[in-house]
Amino acid sequence: MHIVRYRIDGPSRYGVLEGSAVIECGGTPFAGFRRGRRRHPLRQVVLLAPVLPGKIVGVGVNRREDPGPPGEPAPGEPSLFLKPPSAVTGPGDPIVHPPQSGRVECAAELAVVIRRRCRGVAAARAHEVILGYTCLNDVTARDLLGRDGSVTRAKAFDTFCPLGPSIVTDLDPRALTLETWVNGTLRHAVSTKELRLPVEDVVACVSEVMTLLPGDVIATGAGAAVGPIRNGDRVEVRVEGVGGLVNTVVGP
Amino acid sequence: MHIVRYRIDGPSRYGVLEGSAVIECGGTPFAGFRRGRRRHPLRQVVLLAPVLPGKIVGVGVNRREDPGPPGEPAPGEPSLFLKPPSAVTGPGDPIVHPPQSGRVECAAELAVVIRRRCRGVAAARAHEVILGYTCLNDVTARDLLGRDGSVTRAKAFDTFCPLGPSIVTDLDPRALTLETWVNGTLRHAVSTKELRLPVEDVVACVSEVMTLLPGDVIATGAGAAVGPIRNGDRVEVRVEGVGGLVNTVVGP
Repeated sequence: MHIVRYRIDGPSRYGVLEGSAVIECGGTPFAGFRRGRRRHPLRQVVLLAPVLPGKIVGVGVNRREDPGPPGEPAPGEPSLFLKPPSAVTGPGDPIVHPPQSGRVECAAELAVVIRRRCRGVAAARAHEVILGYTCLNDVTARDLLGRDGSVTRAKAFDTFCPLGPSIVTDLDPRALTLETWVNGTLRHAVSTKELRLPVEDVVACVSEVMTLLPGDVIATGAGAAVGPIRNGDRVEVRVEGVGGLVNTVVGP
Repeated sequence: MHIVRYRIDGPSRYGVLEGSAVIECGGTPFAGFRRGRRRHPLRQVVLLAPVLPGKIVGVGVNRREDPGPPGEPAPGEPSLFLKPPSAVTGPGDPIVHPPQSGRVECAAELAVVIRRRCRGVAAARAHEVILGYTCLNDVTARDLLGRDGSVTRAKAFDTFCPLGPSIVTDLDPRALTLETWVNGTLRHAVSTKELRLPVEDVVACVSEVMTLLPGDVIATGAGAAVGPIRNGDRVEVRVEGVGGLVNTVVGP
């Protein structure tokens, strides 16, 4: 199932994709989700970020080829970061290049969307708390990274977290190709096979620290930054089995 | 005005403190707030965190006596961090010492509660977007700081963000004493006069990066960590003009 959030007239709604149609749904993907009767041609709706997460947790440096981060964590200890919910933007929306930065980069990420409240989930049971998967573009102002001793500001700007276009519920995350395209050129490709910590272990690790809630998003750390991206660039994150998330850079 | 959130029977409500009574209010402090007729003795209600923030932004290293952070930021560039909303806990609630840490510390912070949506606010107009001030205890697993190249995990555990007891709307933030008490002993005191970046400038800086929304919380970075705190310790954060936020450590 491909779950979308969209607008066609008035408030946003949830739906499911079927071919080139969106079937309107009642409830939310987290409670009382049910197919309705209305059906819209996909081209007539505006797709939104498929979820408005209460928190977005990222995992840094989770590819096998990555050098260790500064603190040289023990194996199995992922480096976590948070993006604020205000950074979320939808498919087709602009990525706003802030004037404070001289080098903005993007990175394809496989994002997990959490289905239900949980804490201390074992990796072997992580699939029970996962609603599905979507594309996330981990946009970063690279020149601000570490400028203040922290990655937070560099990753927190408005529009620095494109999400979408749909949440795919029946996907095996163990061997998916992730691609970052800029202006029609493939700039980076990686498989989730390369993750040092597989997706289920990432969910387990994060849930050892914090309670996860329905709609929370975890970026699993496969991406490599490509950039700089500049005004007018068309950036696409593709996750095998999910599709492409396209955004255009605006400014400064 | 001292705004509280409380429970007495059924769902949580907003109210205002008057002496030893809570006046029930309609709406929220962000829209349609109005005094109701019901009045409860304070001792009969359970006070909750006075707001459930969509994001919690912290400012590291904002006292004049602090050494610069690793990246030696230029003056005026505060080091930002985020705590997840799942870390929030209320007055009187336990601070849960996670088994992963051998050294948990706490720090009194003056927290700003945002009143309305804003972006790019000038320091001189920051007062227009501030609803009021409350106490925040910036709990940190100090031994995990930097273990993974990031402060996020160390500050993100459930219960690591006690907030309360009330939001005080008519307070001048420029010369307030903040105190951290452990088991009845004063462990640290500081004045907001010591802030390198005054409160209004902190709000301005954060709003240059991200859109602030009603209920968002910003910890202004005056605190100094005191610890370790251990099972059974009674920790109190006092902010002059706000009052005391008391929590007891539980575990591991």
